[in-house]
Amino acid sequence: MSAQIKVAVLGAAGRMGEEAVKAVSAAADMELVASLGRGADLNEILEAGATHIVDLSVPAATEANVRFAVENGLHAVVGTTGWDEERRSNLEGLLAQHPEVGVLIAPNFALGSVLASAFAATAAKYFESVEIIELHHPNKVDAPSGTAVRTAELIAAARKAAGVAKSPDATDTQLDGARGALVDDVHVHSVRLRGLVAHQEVLFGGPGEQFTLRHDSYDRASFMPGVLLGLRKVSAHAGLTYGLDGYLELGQ
Amino acid sequence: MSAQIKVAVLGAAGRMGEEAVKAVSAAADMELVASLGRGADLNEILEAGATHIVDLSVPAATEANVRFAVENGLHAVVGTTGWDEERRSNLEGLLAQHPEVGVLIAPNFALGSVLASAFAATAAKYFESVEIIELHHPNKVDAPSGTAVRTAELIAAARKAAGVAKSPDATDTQLDGARGALVDDVHVHSVRLRGLVAHQEVLFGGPGEQFTLRHDSYDRASFMPGVLLGLRKVSAHAGLTYGLDGYLELGQ
Amino acid sequence: MSAQIKVAVLGAAGRMGEEAVKAVSAAADMELVASLGRGADLNEILEAGATHIVDLSVPAATEANVRFAVENGLHAVVGTTGWDEERRSNLEGLLAQHPEVGVLIAPNFALGSVLASAFAATAAKYFESVEIIELHHPNKVDAPSGTAVRTAELIAAARKAAGVAKSPDATDTQLDGARGALVDDVHVHSVRLRGLVAHQEVLFGGPGEQFTLRHDSYDRASFMPGVLLGLRKVSAHAGLTYGLDGYLELGQ
Amino acid sequence: MSAQIKVAVLGAAGRMGEEAVKAVSAAADMELVASLGRGADLNEILEAGATHIVDLSVPAATEANVRFAVENGLHAVVGTTGWDEERRSNLEGLLAQHPEVGVLIAPNFALGSVLASAFAATAAKYFESVEIIELHHPNKVDAPSGTAVRTAELIAAARKAAGVAKSPDATDTQLDGARGALVDDVHVHSVRLRGLVAHQEVLFGGPGEQFTLRHDSYDRASFMPGVLLGLRKVSAHAGLTYGLDGYLELGQ
Repeated sequence: MSAQIKVAVLGAAGRMGEEAVKAVSAAADMELVASLGRGADLNEILEAGATHIVDLSVPAATEANVRFAVENGLHAVVGTTGWDEERRSNLEGLLAQHPEVGVLIAPNFALGSVLASAFAATAAKYFESVEIIELHHPNKVDAPSGTAVRTAELIAAARKAAGVAKSPDATDTQLDGARGALVDDVHVHSVRLRGLVAHQEVLFGGPGEQFTLRHDSYDRASFMPGVLLGLRKVSAHAGLTYGLDGYLELGQ
Repeated sequence: MSAQIKVAVLGAAGRMGEEAVKAVSAAADMELVASLGRGADLNEILEAGATHIVDLSVPAATEANVRFAVENGLHAVVGTTGWDEERRSNLEGLLAQHPEVGVLIAPNFALGSVLASAFAATAAKYFESVEIIELHHPNKVDAPSGTAVRTAELIAAARKAAGVAKSPDATDTQLDGARGALVDDVHVHSVRLRGLVAHQEVLFGGPGEQFTLRHDSYDRASFMPGVLLGLRKVSAHAGLTYGLDGYLELGQ
Repeated sequence: MSAQIKVAVLGAAGRMGEEAVKAVSAAADMELVASLGRGADLNEILEAGATHIVDLSVPAATEANVRFAVENGLHAVVGTTGWDEERRSNLEGLLAQHPEVGVLIAPNFALGSVLASAFAATAAKYFESVEIIELHHPNKVDAPSGTAVRTAELIAAARKAAGVAKSPDATDTQLDGARGALVDDVHVHSVRLRGLVAHQEVLFGGPGEQFTLRHDSYDRASFMPGVLLGLRKVSAHAGLTYGLDGYLELGQ
Repeated sequence: MSAQIKVAVLGAAGRMGEEAVKAVSAAADMELVASLGRGADLNEILEAGATHIVDLSVPAATEANVRFAVENGLHAVVGTTGWDEERRSNLEGLLAQHPEVGVLIAPNFALGSVLASAFAATAAKYFESVEIIELHHPNKVDAPSGTAVRTAELIAAARKAAGVAKSPDATDTQLDGARGALVDDVHVHSVRLRGLVAHQEVLFGGPGEQFTLRHDSYDRASFMPGVLLGLRKVSAHAGLTYGLDGYLELGQ
């Protein structure tokens, strides 16, 4: 058996952090050795003997947290937002000096959502038509969701690379907005409904058939299997990996 | 047992007419006594001993066909479009002189679609949120579909009558069209996908729950159970009935 | 404007009770005047000036709670289980002596679920085929769910009353269990999946069309709109009403 | 530009054959040079100058048809059933003597169905729970469908290879059949409903999320994009390929 993975959770007092503390504690192959809230002394991580950190803090803190981990030879799994290209480029510079350390930064840890995006990109060139419907609670302020926009972009890029034409559409009379928003020529529809959490359907159509990928996120617990998978694999992926799909086996 | 219903099909050479000829012929309690194409002599109906007609002809012919039936004491089930308010008003004048005759004019004979609309209107006031998604083949030229617009109007009217507020929506940043078209403050989304026929979902949401009514129309055979139901009930509904829901038992 | 509804919540420390305390407190037309946990003195209800009680206690306590309310002229909305026919019959005897008092006992307060059952019963006789799929979390110990069994019974009764035949089925070779359980000749399928809460689909099929009623319960907050609706209507329904559908306007 | 693909359709009078004749005729990069019914002289294929055949004949004829094609240096795309292991082994022997010829034998040409199976196998190890629901018209005599059984076997094999436990299930009281059929420990449910054609859902569940792959087959036209894709790729895949997924790019 491999040794226990000794985990420090940073941002442990936040809602995601609380979930991570529970998930790591419950994993048979892991040991929760430290959980740090805002403003804690990062040296606690070293004193506790951690080999890995999970960073679920805030955009203002995450860069310092991750750099501290890398400088001390700890692997890092990062769910905090705010990692723009400049930050990632700087981090890669640091990782070049610590070639044995792995860092995973993932904008989304829900396995179903990551798989749905990857499969949508793979399927995109095999169908004449594709549209996206995303459905969320009515307190969401942006439409479409960021995930839907990224999925549409992936689909559009795959279709362009394969020389597939735009989805056919004979509409010549429409009420404004009926056909949704266009993201790189992919129609995206945003539904807002009390009671929902976060849901997305990618609908593909060809002659006589429909193929649908649907992901339902009911609870933020959905991120934890992806966080645990990241912790189990990060030491085998030295350097920076951006996106959980980099750790999944997606071919046959 | 009641006597056989002796049916003449008008517009029998059209696609709907062909289906009606098959459906009437297969019904144990009916007899197909005549099937007339375009330009046929309406007296054939009388010579054949019909007690009922099914009119599936064309807008230019339907009014004359139905008036002929009423004047000769025959009940009529009508699926042809073109019955605007003026035509219906004129027909009601004629029916007043033939008080024993029943006429059913229905814009939609698919039982599932008619029930979905009726249930949507009933449910409308019990939920905070409601939206409609309709999905069709990509050769359709209008968006949203006429059925979706009528369903939205029914829902909006029911909510206004009950004093229910608009569906909540915190969207403040959106790509143009993402939130769909607004029909009387009900959001309606139109999907166009190769392979589809005609499909509609009405989605209701309240705290912690979602309630969905979905209708899938795969084939024009879906209209025939409604046509047969109309033929069986029209003699018991003297005068003009507009909409198949007038013949359905929709309460408990 | 009508006067405030002054509500005492019994069983206020339970999970449903906590939700009710929040929901009543948030309702503009209600005032939460008392919330009682297990073993509290029922006289607190009277001292607080309640006009209505919500009973979400336990089977061992609910009968005494409701009888106390009725004897003191208070209306009661009851979500606790355990009201078998004998208890209901006894309660009706007591209500005969208090003809101005209303009691609602409801096995299910989720509006979407109650509407789905009622619509399923109404639609049952209009389609050749019907089956039920219920989907729950994998910790559920019984299959099918009680709601699915009751829905199947309602559908079967409606079809028998209308003389509709069993759903057609040409299956002659099957793996044991593939076609689900039979409840009064209605096929019922039970799915158990990690991540789910409580979901049900009733699928109707006729020539060329499908009609589907789906209810998703994501959270026990889904019961609160039904509890509030009960509180608003119970004073207008003297005597015992069993089932929230008795308060809904389900016809057109 | 590549030269035209010159196609002979065998079994051209059958229902699938008729679709293939239409699809090949409509493809810009193909030319239909021959269409042969039952009992036709295979030399017609050579006289017409075909470079490829599509075999959609019957099990009794398909082996001779394909061997004839291979012996004459023509590539073959085969949708006829009846290719058991012995026949395939014999064909591979023949192909060894014609190393430039490609043959594709596919039990299923619907791209959505093939992708759904492949994605289900890939996703299988990432979720705690998985079940399958297949839905068909009520004239189908077997349950579950062959596609559902194969999908369950693929999923089960992938989970076993990865050491994933059976889906959790606390059911201890059930009506016989409620939990479906077991195929290698995967629960499979078969719905039969008038109006449906052929539909399948694979449902995966993990903590707080659900991931669903759905395929709807509405019409046998759904096989044609796969047949055309096979014709375009078969010359680049010398030897025997079994299953259309062998020609799809399924990784990222």
